[in-house]
Amino acid sequence: MSRPVTCDPPRHAVVEAVARAIAEDLGPLGDISAALLPDPGEVTIADIVPRAAGVLAGSACATEAYAQLDPRVRVTWSATDGDRVAPREAVGRVEGPLAALLTGERTALNFLCHLSGVATLTRRFVDAAAAGGGHARIVDTRKTLPGLRALEKAAVRAGGGANHRGSLSDMVLVKDNHLAGLSIADAVARARSAWPGRGIEIECDRLDQVEEAVVAGAHVVMLDNMTPEAAAVCVEWVRASARPETIIEISGGVGLDTVAAYAATGADVISTSAITQSAPALDLGLDLAAE
Amino acid sequence: MSRPVTCDPPRHAVVEAVARAIAEDLGPLGDISAALLPDPGEVTIADIVPRAAGVLAGSACATEAYAQLDPRVRVTWSATDGDRVAPREAVGRVEGPLAALLTGERTALNFLCHLSGVATLTRRFVDAAAAGGGHARIVDTRKTLPGLRALEKAAVRAGGGANHRGSLSDMVLVKDNHLAGLSIADAVARARSAWPGRGIEIECDRLDQVEEAVVAGAHVVMLDNMTPEAAAVCVEWVRASARPETIIEISGGVGLDTVAAYAATGADVISTSAITQSAPALDLGLDLAAE
Amino acid sequence: MSRPVTCDPPRHAVVEAVARAIAEDLGPLGDISAALLPDPGEVTIADIVPRAAGVLAGSACATEAYAQLDPRVRVTWSATDGDRVAPREAVGRVEGPLAALLTGERTALNFLCHLSGVATLTRRFVDAAAAGGGHARIVDTRKTLPGLRALEKAAVRAGGGANHRGSLSDMVLVKDNHLAGLSIADAVARARSAWPGRGIEIECDRLDQVEEAVVAGAHVVMLDNMTPEAAAVCVEWVRASARPETIIEISGGVGLDTVAAYAATGADVISTSAITQSAPALDLGLDLAAE
Amino acid sequence: MSRPVTCDPPRHAVVEAVARAIAEDLGPLGDISAALLPDPGEVTIADIVPRAAGVLAGSACATEAYAQLDPRVRVTWSATDGDRVAPREAVGRVEGPLAALLTGERTALNFLCHLSGVATLTRRFVDAAAAGGGHARIVDTRKTLPGLRALEKAAVRAGGGANHRGSLSDMVLVKDNHLAGLSIADAVARARSAWPGRGIEIECDRLDQVEEAVVAGAHVVMLDNMTPEAAAVCVEWVRASARPETIIEISGGVGLDTVAAYAATGADVISTSAITQSAPALDLGLDLAAE
Amino acid sequence: MSRPVTCDPPRHAVVEAVARAIAEDLGPLGDISAALLPDPGEVTIADIVPRAAGVLAGSACATEAYAQLDPRVRVTWSATDGDRVAPREAVGRVEGPLAALLTGERTALNFLCHLSGVATLTRRFVDAAAAGGGHARIVDTRKTLPGLRALEKAAVRAGGGANHRGSLSDMVLVKDNHLAGLSIADAVARARSAWPGRGIEIECDRLDQVEEAVVAGAHVVMLDNMTPEAAAVCVEWVRASARPETIIEISGGVGLDTVAAYAATGADVISTSAITQSAPALDLGLDLAAE
Amino acid sequence: MSRPVTCDPPRHAVVEAVARAIAEDLGPLGDISAALLPDPGEVTIADIVPRAAGVLAGSACATEAYAQLDPRVRVTWSATDGDRVAPREAVGRVEGPLAALLTGERTALNFLCHLSGVATLTRRFVDAAAAGGGHARIVDTRKTLPGLRALEKAAVRAGGGANHRGSLSDMVLVKDNHLAGLSIADAVARARSAWPGRGIEIECDRLDQVEEAVVAGAHVVMLDNMTPEAAAVCVEWVRASARPETIIEISGGVGLDTVAAYAATGADVISTSAITQSAPALDLGLDLAAE
Repeated sequence: MSRPVTCDPPRHAVVEAVARAIAEDLGPLGDISAALLPDPGEVTIADIVPRAAGVLAGSACATEAYAQLDPRVRVTWSATDGDRVAPREAVGRVEGPLAALLTGERTALNFLCHLSGVATLTRRFVDAAAAGGGHARIVDTRKTLPGLRALEKAAVRAGGGANHRGSLSDMVLVKDNHLAGLSIADAVARARSAWPGRGIEIECDRLDQVEEAVVAGAHVVMLDNMTPEAAAVCVEWVRASARPETIIEISGGVGLDTVAAYAATGADVISTSAITQSAPALDLGLDLAAE
Repeated sequence: MSRPVTCDPPRHAVVEAVARAIAEDLGPLGDISAALLPDPGEVTIADIVPRAAGVLAGSACATEAYAQLDPRVRVTWSATDGDRVAPREAVGRVEGPLAALLTGERTALNFLCHLSGVATLTRRFVDAAAAGGGHARIVDTRKTLPGLRALEKAAVRAGGGANHRGSLSDMVLVKDNHLAGLSIADAVARARSAWPGRGIEIECDRLDQVEEAVVAGAHVVMLDNMTPEAAAVCVEWVRASARPETIIEISGGVGLDTVAAYAATGADVISTSAITQSAPALDLGLDLAAE
Repeated sequence: MSRPVTCDPPRHAVVEAVARAIAEDLGPLGDISAALLPDPGEVTIADIVPRAAGVLAGSACATEAYAQLDPRVRVTWSATDGDRVAPREAVGRVEGPLAALLTGERTALNFLCHLSGVATLTRRFVDAAAAGGGHARIVDTRKTLPGLRALEKAAVRAGGGANHRGSLSDMVLVKDNHLAGLSIADAVARARSAWPGRGIEIECDRLDQVEEAVVAGAHVVMLDNMTPEAAAVCVEWVRASARPETIIEISGGVGLDTVAAYAATGADVISTSAITQSAPALDLGLDLAAE
Repeated sequence: MSRPVTCDPPRHAVVEAVARAIAEDLGPLGDISAALLPDPGEVTIADIVPRAAGVLAGSACATEAYAQLDPRVRVTWSATDGDRVAPREAVGRVEGPLAALLTGERTALNFLCHLSGVATLTRRFVDAAAAGGGHARIVDTRKTLPGLRALEKAAVRAGGGANHRGSLSDMVLVKDNHLAGLSIADAVARARSAWPGRGIEIECDRLDQVEEAVVAGAHVVMLDNMTPEAAAVCVEWVRASARPETIIEISGGVGLDTVAAYAATGADVISTSAITQSAPALDLGLDLAAE
Repeated sequence: MSRPVTCDPPRHAVVEAVARAIAEDLGPLGDISAALLPDPGEVTIADIVPRAAGVLAGSACATEAYAQLDPRVRVTWSATDGDRVAPREAVGRVEGPLAALLTGERTALNFLCHLSGVATLTRRFVDAAAAGGGHARIVDTRKTLPGLRALEKAAVRAGGGANHRGSLSDMVLVKDNHLAGLSIADAVARARSAWPGRGIEIECDRLDQVEEAVVAGAHVVMLDNMTPEAAAVCVEWVRASARPETIIEISGGVGLDTVAAYAATGADVISTSAITQSAPALDLGLDLAAE
Repeated sequence: MSRPVTCDPPRHAVVEAVARAIAEDLGPLGDISAALLPDPGEVTIADIVPRAAGVLAGSACATEAYAQLDPRVRVTWSATDGDRVAPREAVGRVEGPLAALLTGERTALNFLCHLSGVATLTRRFVDAAAAGGGHARIVDTRKTLPGLRALEKAAVRAGGGANHRGSLSDMVLVKDNHLAGLSIADAVARARSAWPGRGIEIECDRLDQVEEAVVAGAHVVMLDNMTPEAAAVCVEWVRASARPETIIEISGGVGLDTVAAYAATGADVISTSAITQSAPALDLGLDLAAE
């Protein structure tokens, strides 16, 4: 039961994103610099090497990039998505014609650096939350970079996090703007009838809303922008209620400095947009073997 | 001569990226939460409001997102891309059916937050460089997020930066890996003949390479991973050479803390991948008008 | 609370499906028969008229088809998706150049006839279930026609049904093949941890599985291929359990002749693939106004 | 001469439709249920098994679905499109990682079930027509499901039917709406001049129109909504005319109960929209090998 | 009866081809030269002016190019596709922001110049054929430029020509390679049965093949690579046969110098690949109004 | 240094253009003529044979066309892009099922004939320029056929030419319309600042503009529509100036009859739109092996 769920992105998402990225980076003429090489077809080996410590993600994209660019290139991996990687220790190897290696370098690395950056920051949040005690999982949000959601959500899983909604079709999330003229109880009943079986989550700013949501049968209550202290009160109330299994999500104001305190409240999930929207790239490079 | 060049992204890039993002966020069923609203068609006004200071970018994407989602929604702007924005001061307004406003909120904001983040960090680099004196422009790299290059490069312009290569087809950039078995002089001659009129840039690690590149007629010399002191020596040499107008680019090791020192060398451009690859999102929100 | 949720399909799904259908039907030369018309530009009015009783769906697709084909054509509706329609009573009107009306006729009607067929059959199931008493909602499955899922699911809503999963990303559904080496309790715990907040459904063939699933906290139990009598026993057990609100889905062997008996069990939802996979078209035609 | 023409759909149509269907069914996160499997990579064998008698079609789509999803999966067939299949007798086998088998199951089966449904109903019409005597072929129409035309038309061929127009570009079909201000003779002459070599078909409601069309040199006359008796009179006239080889199509009011009577008239083709627009799915399932 | 059929290309073909062309020409940064304009938004008028005599085609593409690029630009036409145009006499006018006019100039003109080139050369063939007497129509082939077929076929119609097959799905064309092991009579019978109603054409190298094809009921006989004299013999035979209305196509070896002689044979259509595959561009330019 | 840069087009451009062309040529039903073959699967060999002398280009497209159509077909080449080819001497061979060979023939040849036509005409210009003396390279323009730019530019390289701009993003080209209210010196300074490192080219009608452009530091001066004599004066001035390495482009009025005279001026590049916009197809055919 300890095996994590797969962090692989769906293959079609990889294929499409890579095709787009290659067209974007090559332009109409291709790599006009590599075209100048005296021996473009020389079979060459290069290592994919992190420049800093972190967590690997995006390997399927790098493999696909070279596959689309030139089927003669072979990419092999000594690490897999989700592995912690160390600076200067190769995680993969690329072998093929020199021109192809250079032409695909940036596309492959742009995926690797961004997605490993997402996985690395997620892992930092996961570790920080663990330090706070409790069992809270770090989850992402829909604040992802346009066109990259499936890949970023897979990178979050690689970093030990879990995924909140993949799209607006997945779950019902009732925010204050949805509640004009509708009580929480009505909203839950309406959601349960309209979208039977979907997870139903209620955004709550105050304990009385939490109480109303739990009583109404919401599957998740989101404690929005609460202090750890206020959140702890809500958690305590829920656990003592008739529905102690209600999932409690903490959202808003979560940073690496505060996540431990939030985790210590006993909440189930802590969501943060930082891991997808503001993750710095993990620096990885392609090192050609010295001759 | 002081008017900056346009920072608008090409319209086709906006249309395509937005279409992709909407399909990604809505999923097969659309916004199942907004579907629960008692009065989804209620005409509503909402303001687009920064939560922090920064520079606006991505407004065309937000406008396009609502246009594709529901033609009844109107988006108007009180600020334009490139403007500095302040927290709690609205930069735009959205008016239309409540359900459409809520459904499009995340797609519109995902573009705005990321691209404004790029523009904001670029502006910080531009300002920091200006503080160092000299005339260096901040430029981006090809280290962009896959599928978002055209939009990110426009955001860099909005932040006061300039664009390095848009794709591998744009300019010739000769790095060490291209020079196996080829002198710099040969590489420049080859490039000049093969791609007449294209900018030719040579990556240089040492002063003697700079000298060779300038003599060969390279349009740009890239000083790669040099200290400010080493870079200053190179700049001095170029300016005193027979081709003082050669563009000098500084690359590698450039951070907000070092950019002023690099700018003080008198270099022409300073490139950094941080502004596209590692820019934190600028937080903007959609505030529905209180009734 | 009695207003139904919207049955409109997401607009991007309409735009994409229509573009595909137009390209498919026009071919490289367009409508070579309409090209022979003596006066192709003659402004003409035509009514969209059902040939049989049913429920309307797909009107947005028909409107979009003409919009993409020729912006001069105007489509107006006297009925909306979800309305019951009667034979020979027009539901909409198309006005524009004669050649455009004829060229777009088949594309517009193909959407209308299929989607109204889905809505009509759904409505028949809904009505038949209602006749059985209880409160069960009719829901669809993932057995939809490739490329048409978003539109068919909207048509199901138009017919008074609700939607089961939109994609494999939406909810966790644990079938027997997933349970090799995993107890139901373990599967629920695993799902709750891996995908916090998602609806979790367990396929059950026997009462003891239902008991195990309910105790484990599954949100939905699917009674698979049970007789109405066997299902009634399960429903009774759940309602008397500590989690009476668990959603009970009946699946398999559901037809127009049996749905009332299943509804009478007190189940919450009854799923059937027939409404999307085997719905006969509702015949609608385009009648040009006599001069 | 007895070998039928190929019933394979064009490969590009298969590739495109499958790519669309996979993206549609997997969503942004992929199969979140299969992700819970204790051993997702376990190599597994499963049989594709009809639950009812019918005619197979769509095998190329099922093969392609698994190829796009996971290249490690192998699909082999013991039957080919057009073969009659029996319940509980496997027609194909899928072998590969368990998670991939489960993830692709629905996409593969959705194609198989719909297209085999089309082929099966077509075959029923073909057999029923044959029972009536004569030589009439069953043909489809342009009343197909949007985005699936190429695949459905191939399934019609698999069922022993033939294809009417693939698109509006294929043949000239003159209906009453085209004839305002134009005689049949003029329409044929116009079509012959404008689109030389294309098949020209005239829709006829009465014998005098048939006579006019045949004399004018139409290649096909469509007897629209005639009784078998009225149609027989027209057939007799044509066969006795100077152009007895004119193809006679019967259209409208054709059902499984009437098709024999229409075939007995000696007509050449009988068209029906039921086979594409209203064909119930043929139920096929994926049965994992018991261990 | 003298009105020609429309020469407009299908709108979806225009929209798609233009979107592709704009993305291709603008690249990731857009028009970096126009970005330097001191006043890019200055409203400007420009005329579309032929530099040589010819026939206009492609106007819908030019209009669409500006519509996609910038909705503020308005394009109006004083000539329509199919009109003869004279050097230095404007055929259209573009009005809008200066930068948009310059940015879209090349995309708009690339369509206009190529398609007008096709129309112009077609018209030259049509006129030359008319000079030879007879009634032969000039038709195109499937030898078109990849991705541009629908537009080129419309341009052929604009030039007074007609269209042969739009795709391999349109008509049956039996060439020598199809006849291995099959007589012409068998091929026609097979085609008539397999694809009822489609035009059936037989490629013939000799008179005896023509005789066989006509007797078999082929709709079109193609006289392949015959001299005008040999062709005349065939025409005479057909006209005196029992099927004098059989369409006679002349193909191969047709040039502007020989087309009159071929037309004089009394053939019905003369096909040439030159008009699509080898048509020189008609030079048109965009002239900005002098201030 | 004498090895030419690669003339291969970027692989993604080949894949996309071929997919489009196959869909375009096959239509919804595929090759309805090949479907009639008695033995469509018969393994057959065919040679790709030029009918006239020229230069080969487009081989990657032909290979890809068959790969997409039917993976069982194998294409091998005895010549490569850029090779001179002679009539009746095979350049490649196709082996596979007869029906696939015939079905793909036109798509493969349409690419080969057009792109070899471009390469062949380019080579004629290159040879004619060489006959004039000097060192001028023949370059293309942005006057390419919509959707085919990457392929045509590769064909120009195959013909011995070089490429001017791939898109508007590549280089700055300042024409008279850009100079309203801006001196040449200002334009160059603006371009150098806005797009540092890009090639900057100035269109010049007169010697004084050339002088101004060279002094301002333009990388390329375009002598627009000058006679060879006027161009020679400009070349002489530039070579005697302080920036003799400035690239001199001759544009306008260049034909096969005048290119030698222009080359004799000592200019660096001579651009012509004829090679892409008006190149007649090189006739190549597919010859099936006689049995």
